[in-house]
Amino acid sequence: MVERYALEPLKSLWTLKTQYERWLEVELAVVEAYEEKNIAPKGTAQKIRESASIDVDDILETEKIVDHDVIAFIKSVTKNMGDEARYFHYGLTSSDIVDTANSLALVRCLDTIINSCEKLGESLYKKAIEYKKLPTIGRTHGVHAEPTSFGLKFLSWYAELTRNIERLKYVKEEIAVGKLSGAVGNYANIDPEIEKIALQKLGLKPTPVATQVISRDYIAHMLSVFAVLAGLIERIAIEIRHLQKTEVLEAMEPFKEGQRGSSAMPHKKNPILCERLTGMARLIRSYAQVGFENMALWHERDISHSSAERYILPDSTMTIYYMIEKTRHIIENIKIFDKNIVKNIDITNGLVYSQRVMLALVDVGMSREEAYTIVQKYALECWETGKSFKEMLKKDENISKLLADKIDEIFKPDYYLRNIEEIYKRFGRQE
Amino acid sequence: MVERYALEPLKSLWTLKTQYERWLEVELAVVEAYEEKNIAPKGTAQKIRESASIDVDDILETEKIVDHDVIAFIKSVTKNMGDEARYFHYGLTSSDIVDTANSLALVRCLDTIINSCEKLGESLYKKAIEYKKLPTIGRTHGVHAEPTSFGLKFLSWYAELTRNIERLKYVKEEIAVGKLSGAVGNYANIDPEIEKIALQKLGLKPTPVATQVISRDYIAHMLSVFAVLAGLIERIAIEIRHLQKTEVLEAMEPFKEGQRGSSAMPHKKNPILCERLTGMARLIRSYAQVGFENMALWHERDISHSSAERYILPDSTMTIYYMIEKTRHIIENIKIFDKNIVKNIDITNGLVYSQRVMLALVDVGMSREEAYTIVQKYALECWETGKSFKEMLKKDENISKLLADKIDEIFKPDYYLRNIEEIYKRFGRQE
Amino acid sequence: MVERYALEPLKSLWTLKTQYERWLEVELAVVEAYEEKNIAPKGTAQKIRESASIDVDDILETEKIVDHDVIAFIKSVTKNMGDEARYFHYGLTSSDIVDTANSLALVRCLDTIINSCEKLGESLYKKAIEYKKLPTIGRTHGVHAEPTSFGLKFLSWYAELTRNIERLKYVKEEIAVGKLSGAVGNYANIDPEIEKIALQKLGLKPTPVATQVISRDYIAHMLSVFAVLAGLIERIAIEIRHLQKTEVLEAMEPFKEGQRGSSAMPHKKNPILCERLTGMARLIRSYAQVGFENMALWHERDISHSSAERYILPDSTMTIYYMIEKTRHIIENIKIFDKNIVKNIDITNGLVYSQRVMLALVDVGMSREEAYTIVQKYALECWETGKSFKEMLKKDENISKLLADKIDEIFKPDYYLRNIEEIYKRFGRQE
Amino acid sequence: MVERYALEPLKSLWTLKTQYERWLEVELAVVEAYEEKNIAPKGTAQKIRESASIDVDDILETEKIVDHDVIAFIKSVTKNMGDEARYFHYGLTSSDIVDTANSLALVRCLDTIINSCEKLGESLYKKAIEYKKLPTIGRTHGVHAEPTSFGLKFLSWYAELTRNIERLKYVKEEIAVGKLSGAVGNYANIDPEIEKIALQKLGLKPTPVATQVISRDYIAHMLSVFAVLAGLIERIAIEIRHLQKTEVLEAMEPFKEGQRGSSAMPHKKNPILCERLTGMARLIRSYAQVGFENMALWHERDISHSSAERYILPDSTMTIYYMIEKTRHIIENIKIFDKNIVKNIDITNGLVYSQRVMLALVDVGMSREEAYTIVQKYALECWETGKSFKEMLKKDENISKLLADKIDEIFKPDYYLRNIEEIYKRFGRQE
Repeated sequence: MVERYALEPLKSLWTLKTQYERWLEVELAVVEAYEEKNIAPKGTAQKIRESASIDVDDILETEKIVDHDVIAFIKSVTKNMGDEARYFHYGLTSSDIVDTANSLALVRCLDTIINSCEKLGESLYKKAIEYKKLPTIGRTHGVHAEPTSFGLKFLSWYAELTRNIERLKYVKEEIAVGKLSGAVGNYANIDPEIEKIALQKLGLKPTPVATQVISRDYIAHMLSVFAVLAGLIERIAIEIRHLQKTEVLEAMEPFKEGQRGSSAMPHKKNPILCERLTGMARLIRSYAQVGFENMALWHERDISHSSAERYILPDSTMTIYYMIEKTRHIIENIKIFDKNIVKNIDITNGLVYSQRVMLALVDVGMSREEAYTIVQKYALECWETGKSFKEMLKKDENISKLLADKIDEIFKPDYYLRNIEEIYKRFGRQE
Repeated sequence: MVERYALEPLKSLWTLKTQYERWLEVELAVVEAYEEKNIAPKGTAQKIRESASIDVDDILETEKIVDHDVIAFIKSVTKNMGDEARYFHYGLTSSDIVDTANSLALVRCLDTIINSCEKLGESLYKKAIEYKKLPTIGRTHGVHAEPTSFGLKFLSWYAELTRNIERLKYVKEEIAVGKLSGAVGNYANIDPEIEKIALQKLGLKPTPVATQVISRDYIAHMLSVFAVLAGLIERIAIEIRHLQKTEVLEAMEPFKEGQRGSSAMPHKKNPILCERLTGMARLIRSYAQVGFENMALWHERDISHSSAERYILPDSTMTIYYMIEKTRHIIENIKIFDKNIVKNIDITNGLVYSQRVMLALVDVGMSREEAYTIVQKYALECWETGKSFKEMLKKDENISKLLADKIDEIFKPDYYLRNIEEIYKRFGRQE
Repeated sequence: MVERYALEPLKSLWTLKTQYERWLEVELAVVEAYEEKNIAPKGTAQKIRESASIDVDDILETEKIVDHDVIAFIKSVTKNMGDEARYFHYGLTSSDIVDTANSLALVRCLDTIINSCEKLGESLYKKAIEYKKLPTIGRTHGVHAEPTSFGLKFLSWYAELTRNIERLKYVKEEIAVGKLSGAVGNYANIDPEIEKIALQKLGLKPTPVATQVISRDYIAHMLSVFAVLAGLIERIAIEIRHLQKTEVLEAMEPFKEGQRGSSAMPHKKNPILCERLTGMARLIRSYAQVGFENMALWHERDISHSSAERYILPDSTMTIYYMIEKTRHIIENIKIFDKNIVKNIDITNGLVYSQRVMLALVDVGMSREEAYTIVQKYALECWETGKSFKEMLKKDENISKLLADKIDEIFKPDYYLRNIEEIYKRFGRQE
Repeated sequence: MVERYALEPLKSLWTLKTQYERWLEVELAVVEAYEEKNIAPKGTAQKIRESASIDVDDILETEKIVDHDVIAFIKSVTKNMGDEARYFHYGLTSSDIVDTANSLALVRCLDTIINSCEKLGESLYKKAIEYKKLPTIGRTHGVHAEPTSFGLKFLSWYAELTRNIERLKYVKEEIAVGKLSGAVGNYANIDPEIEKIALQKLGLKPTPVATQVISRDYIAHMLSVFAVLAGLIERIAIEIRHLQKTEVLEAMEPFKEGQRGSSAMPHKKNPILCERLTGMARLIRSYAQVGFENMALWHERDISHSSAERYILPDSTMTIYYMIEKTRHIIENIKIFDKNIVKNIDITNGLVYSQRVMLALVDVGMSREEAYTIVQKYALECWETGKSFKEMLKKDENISKLLADKIDEIFKPDYYLRNIEEIYKRFGRQE
């Protein structure tokens, strides 16, 4: 992981130390289950808890010899144990520990990530309300289309985020599974009951059928949901980058006191956070790709997924979390330039009302084809010459007669906000 | 799409003709809504239905002039209409039609895909039951690990497929949205009520907030669920390819009467279907990547997603469908060589029982470390020499004394199937 | 492949018929080699050429029975042959034909693609010369930076394209290999000499070591070079989309007579071609991903790459070719709005000259830090207030004294074009 | 980067400290150029070299305020400078430093990577020679095909590696470019001559046309060449994993003294290194994807590539280097089980000679179709029954008469190695 983008609490979740602690947590849950089922004597778990100590360096040194991280962990942790050590890792295989602990880590990451999304959702909704009635020009293909509500931008992101939160919850629910079923997942040396009890203590459920490992579809799905979420964040980032373009300047991401935009050009205020998020979205997409490829393991498992997961599980969760948090920071502190927003609506000299003119002509009886053709003709002329579209229409005798005093009415942005309220109502929220 | 992999009914869903028919279907639903709300005169929809005819060539010719597929469609379809044409496409923008019709197409594809998955599930479950009690060697890292149930392979796929069916249903539910909200999604020239009524007729719901288009997160999520499903199919395919390897030969995909494996080598029977599926999984993954990149459209939309979707929507749905259907064909007609399966368990001369020996030693009081070390020593010797592991253990005085008559018991595969039933029970099905 | 994006001559290269013709071409080259080495009687190739006829439907019908496309081809093509048939496909394996013919197809595609790139290069260079002296505002982070030459945009694309042409040539040179070395690539039943002669006739060289197939690194590299080229085209497309934005309007992709930008908004002229190319770049990237995954075949080959290549070889070559041709069309017919370009330089009221002011202050003795700080202060004030940067500086006594009459000189764009000529000279071309 | 996979000397190349040192190296080269051109007084570079000190913590602290890493670097490094500071970073923009230093880092990485590949090449070639005459069964589709040389496996990898080394050299040559051309790449405040001199000192050439940055096609191409190389390594890894499968056991990756294969199963020796490499290939592929997406920057640059490159430049170079080094370790220490290799040739009871039988029949006058049909018939029967193919053929009167005493000759593997020497000769090497 790139140090500068690693935020707490996730950062601490992915240290080697925390990983070993999670492994111990799983091992202990199993011992407790053995106690509960009277296989291990009462007090065994407690004894282990007291005697087990995690010494990262010692584990790494041991790994150099045995070339197996879980075996090194067991050797090191049980070093000072007495007879209780015989119940440590009993009936288990390495992947029982690694995969169950992995699920724990991911569930915890997802908790933080979902929570962070929910806070971002609040910020987005707040802005959506704040700017509901501010008219802005809607742009399709980067070209002015028709006026709309500036708040709708935020509401659209909010709606999409809401879907992503649902997906994240779905994924979290899915991924909250463990497996304690031994070398090939058939409970050869462990009772399914032990798995059930131990996993329950950890807040997990048994995956219905395991091989040596938990199937990688869970992680692949999680990573793709991250990629879908990253797509939204990229959409937000790109919108703000567009709005911050010098010619548009309708919004600006926060620019800190003391910040410098360029080493060469003192006047610069650049949307560097949004650009950073754009780049990160590419990373998150690439993790999904790795996740997909990690699924088709050989037979009852091969370990090819493992090296890849050492990179992508920490990096994907920390990066998406960073992205959400930064997006929230941007949304909460974004500068909106209302004046420019309003001003920009009119830079086409009224062309953006062309559809309304066309529909008005249809309403008074012109055919759609005819209306389209005549309106396009004037529109293109206005486009070339920079003349006022409204004035041009007024000069056309036929149109002027057909539309009469409606023309002035047509060239007002408020009309386009008439039905906005209906959209907001869909979220059933107090404002 | 590659002709040879295009199966009905999906193939017909993606012809140009069917696409135009869906567009007309959406246009008509809107007209009906206008009628219902007394905006269009009663009978308008009926008139349009009668006068509208889809002439693919004429639409394509018109498109060459106007360079816009929806406009070409409207021009061509309304050619012979009378006054009712004024209600055709009224208040709509092209994307209202394209995106809503897209959703219709995808929902229909998903119906077929889910149905196909469910049938595959049945086949997998049947095989899982059939081979429940057949012991086989579990392989981890490609190396013999411990015996397990051959049926578990199928059950593991069945369980993963079940999760994928749930994901597909989730995605289908998500994607069943339309939008009829005009040029920038603000209902400038159409009442939200019209959208609601029209979409209901089509079996869709309004997307909560649209820009000019429906947000692409829906499709991106769908494509990633396809990629996750393709990962399972790849897992199945790779397993069968492994089992069909000459040295293993525990299973074989169906080989048709008259089929030839090689132009050069008359003896060959190759798992070409499974290999084909393996290659296709790569395609499906790549579509997800395109789907992710298609999300961050500029402002109220740009149309960059459109060219990409012309490829990937038909290709992804048809290819994944082909994959599911072919997998089902393979599973239903797979040849299982029971004798080889049983024979293979013993090719390590008993090494695969090493864990059981170790645990038995722990049970009678040896420490785990000591047991591991001694068992590994004999195991490696047996591995090198090809001697019988059991005989070797019996010759060790200490072990022989500690385990006594348990030794013979240990070297039996049935032990490993003891708890299998518990796994099967989780699915709560009649056998 | 999507019909509407398939252009000649590549489209014809990828029909089933042309594929079979290439197969026959390879088979015949081998027979000719046998003749040359006096293994086949003189005249055999000629006889085969006369008796072999390609009947696509018959081949497909036969394939339904034998489930193997090359065997079906052989069976069908040799149907009416006499004794000369015994030299047809003699000593070969299917992949000898398929892979060698594939190389032929790809070399031919690359010829067309390289040629198309070279023509695009000419168009880009021409525009680079044409707009060399037109000052424009350089934008970094989407924010006005400093003036530069509008022609440099084209020259930068030209330079990058030149690199891509070199890469394409490298790839073409690499990929011009065949293999006629039998079932596992060891010339078991064919003399290496035959391969050499036959391939020479086809304009190919033997791949140094084959398995049953030619290694897939060649194709993977080709597809990634396509992806790198697509990245350039995307860069061009995105630049034009930006320049066509209503607020910027410095350029516009060609808009045909009769074209319609929107079914709803008659005034619209949208950069739909550039958007189309943007979407296609995503596809081309995704093919590279498939190409990478297609490399690690099992042992002396598996056939998993085959299904994937049936999609991506035609689609990647045809799509990248379409992209190059469309880009050329756009570049050759692009509309450049000089007035807007010049006008836009000044919309920041002179801020874009901030670095020059800073450097001028350093030149007259101020420290860099001090100069940066004071210039940033005025720049930000000017940014907020919209005041003229130049006037503001003139009002500052210290600056005004230090820079004196240099100030007016500083605020001229021509300064930024001083060294442009040096860049153009690097290409050593006549203008 | 994942600590455990970071190897020297690359690891040190990517620390923050080394990065700042490279930045300083570039800044100094520019100052030296200014000296050479008599713009800076003699001795300036020397003074700067003496007064500049890199204090990582101070730079990071400063960055927190200015939110710009290069500005922080300049501020911190010039802290204790005297008047010479005015020539530090003079006329430059941040990207001049960052991108030029990046090229330096990548060239250095590529030097190490190419060198490592060359050593791997030697190891592969050595093994290719060593096992040239060892017959083994060639496998296509995972199914026994025909005998071949075991050494050819290595030679095939060697040949592909050779191509990759060429590609890496091409990429290194390409990427050895810098840019010192200011804010928008037009040498507004720096003479092209300065760039030329400074870059020459650094062993780089000017990129022909820069924007604010060096075009990202160079890096994208490099990353794709890594992905192509990773595909080869994956191919090697998968082959060894296959050969180490219990049923095959023809080779085994090195297993260290003291190593443990499984926490549960003491008998296990798993190809964990090869599996690790397989997983890493997926990562390398994913970096290429990010590289492709990083190309289409807005206008004269946006900075979206930067966050992504902070991850993928270190991770891709370090990971591919780890992969090459590990592959070499594996190849140099691989265990080859000659006996099993020879034994495996015959497990089909002679079926693998089916083509030779067919061709022998054609040679004595049978038509290819007839020969194929009869041989396939016996082959399939032999396959089902496990009978000896040779004996079966001998019992067929017709075949027995046609082939007579040739039959025994046909069933010998040496025949398949006849032409191997020709392949080896292509590399023109002493053995």
